[in-house]
Amino acid sequence: MARLAIATRNAHKVDEIWAILESLLPHLHRDEVASALDLDAPSPVEDGVTFEANALIKARELAASTGLPALADDSGIAVDVLGGSPGVFSARWAGAHGGDAANLALLLDQLGDVPDEHRGAAFVCAAALVTPDGREFVEVGRMPGRVVRESRGAGGFGYDPIFVPDGYDVTTAELSPEDKNAISHRGAAFRAMAPHVAAVLT
Amino acid sequence: MARLAIATRNAHKVDEIWAILESLLPHLHRDEVASALDLDAPSPVEDGVTFEANALIKARELAASTGLPALADDSGIAVDVLGGSPGVFSARWAGAHGGDAANLALLLDQLGDVPDEHRGAAFVCAAALVTPDGREFVEVGRMPGRVVRESRGAGGFGYDPIFVPDGYDVTTAELSPEDKNAISHRGAAFRAMAPHVAAVLT
Repeated sequence: MARLAIATRNAHKVDEIWAILESLLPHLHRDEVASALDLDAPSPVEDGVTFEANALIKARELAASTGLPALADDSGIAVDVLGGSPGVFSARWAGAHGGDAANLALLLDQLGDVPDEHRGAAFVCAAALVTPDGREFVEVGRMPGRVVRESRGAGGFGYDPIFVPDGYDVTTAELSPEDKNAISHRGAAFRAMAPHVAAVLT
Repeated sequence: MARLAIATRNAHKVDEIWAILESLLPHLHRDEVASALDLDAPSPVEDGVTFEANALIKARELAASTGLPALADDSGIAVDVLGGSPGVFSARWAGAHGGDAANLALLLDQLGDVPDEHRGAAFVCAAALVTPDGREFVEVGRMPGRVVRESRGAGGFGYDPIFVPDGYDVTTAELSPEDKNAISHRGAAFRAMAPHVAAVLT
């Protein structure tokens, strides 16, 4: 019987979030967590202009349609010299019909002339938890680093191949999933959210 | 005999700047103003990350190579919801090999879902004046408005067809050059610069 809904249609993403929450929520079981796909829930229009707003849109819609506490996140890359863009537009940076490769290639091209000292960026994730009775929580995680000049690594997705976290020499596409979760924006946001999840499930 | 150099290789842009300055600088004659092209001056690498920095790079280079007081500008469109991007990347937003049409189409596509109340933007122009003996002046002009959803008008260039200034119902591509100069970011920056030009030419 589902006790917690997660606003994604991607089974892999449920696994990733579960990997972060599992040790922090000993009283929750994997088969009590259901995705929007499992629950056949509708997808809302994500027209917020901040990560927090989009995460809340998704969590509110899912809580309303399922009657369960709902967890959602929205994330992207924020480049300093672009004033925080691509930001909430990360997944469609090269246009609505582009994809990861096109988005990443466009960002590299836009930053072509930018010297190393101005290539700072951060991956940002906002996680939102909304209960059917209207309680709302938001937590934001950040992973600071910089945008490099060429893609490296086959892991991860999105902008991972062109992002090197502070203190590392490799891109996040060259890290193992475990190593990435330990330092990632998504890991930080969901770890910060775990106590709220535990509280609303009590 | 040239007394003032203007950092552009575009004769039309010299005319546009002259149209703004002419009435403000009665002691300067049109044939005392020379472009970087007229003077066969080299083009510097514009690797600044602000309009002000790029305008100064161009003016310093031209003053050094010609021995004349040099006037330069850098301008672009700053979209609120993109944190001021495209900004200094306006001319290459769709990549180094794109053009006006590609840049504009990409920006419209990126903003596709953004509601009207979040489509605020401004055209921004930084003008810089540098003398061979090292005096430097910077003035910034802004034209606030919003990004509309479809191109309208055949005038202007760049993002003009998708930008409506505050207080107007038409795009800047639908304004006459005179009407556009009267309210434009470039007009404001060069009008503010005129007294400095007059002073260094004395």
